[in-house]
Amino acid sequence: MNADPNLDLRFHRDVPISPAQVWEGWTNPAVLMQWFCPRPWKVVDCEIDLRPGGIFRTVMQSPEGQNMPANSGTYLAIEPQRRLVWTNALGPGFRPNPKPDDQSLGFLFVVDLTLSALPNGGTSYTAVVMHQDAAGREAHAAMGFEQGWGIALDQLVELQRGG
Amino acid sequence: MNADPNLDLRFHRDVPISPAQVWEGWTNPAVLMQWFCPRPWKVVDCEIDLRPGGIFRTVMQSPEGQNMPANSGTYLAIEPQRRLVWTNALGPGFRPNPKPDDQSLGFLFVVDLTLSALPNGGTSYTAVVMHQDAAGREAHAAMGFEQGWGIALDQLVELQRGG
Repeated sequence: MNADPNLDLRFHRDVPISPAQVWEGWTNPAVLMQWFCPRPWKVVDCEIDLRPGGIFRTVMQSPEGQNMPANSGTYLAIEPQRRLVWTNALGPGFRPNPKPDDQSLGFLFVVDLTLSALPNGGTSYTAVVMHQDAAGREAHAAMGFEQGWGIALDQLVELQRGG
Repeated sequence: MNADPNLDLRFHRDVPISPAQVWEGWTNPAVLMQWFCPRPWKVVDCEIDLRPGGIFRTVMQSPEGQNMPANSGTYLAIEPQRRLVWTNALGPGFRPNPKPDDQSLGFLFVVDLTLSALPNGGTSYTAVVMHQDAAGREAHAAMGFEQGWGIALDQLVELQRGG
């Protein structure tokens, strides 16, 4: 995966949980809902059909209890415990999603998440998030991409360690 | 594949060549270049990396000898001789393509092509082309989608029958 600094955001961490535990966090809706969104935001609904063209849908809720419009994306590549590629540009059945508006994430992206086992039992966790243009990248960065992904991943680690 | 009449264009024909011959026409660049574009237009370059996330790139040339901007799409699903899904919304590595402009096909689409063998040795050939919005569908229809796909498919049949 070659990152393009003008179009992509990259997030990397080594985490002390196994690739299997990370994978479960991303692919089991009951687990995903517990960590995917930095608290006090939460995920109140999640639908996962883990195959290329299958739905990946989450509904996030603000601390005031307001539900955001659902994000319905789809999976593009699935290699258990190694790689998960998904996008909000297409929905289930690979159907193009409507043009994004400001109520949802106002830009298209593709997430290419790769995992590899570390000798200590942990996981090297790398996400490359590709955008359609530099403006999309900048909007995503300004939303707090780096911090948001970091807090969420901390929540996953805490959850999977039984914290 | 559920077609949406507001967003999709659908093309169906029974053709007197086998699914293997249709598949070769779509996946072997040297063969594709001979039929993919209604004459006197032609395809002057074609690159195919037949795997999910692999490139599908064609360059078309007008009868006056002018090359159009390359269309670089990618494959989303590949089931040999049965189903081929590709899009111009994403490029190789599933990277989002820049927003389309009027120099290229000015809309995003996903082609879901399905083939099934007929008892007479021929192929039931169905393409559902999904668009992001009704305007995209209408622009594609106005470009002569139905006629263009029909003429091109006639050219493939003629080619594969040694005509």
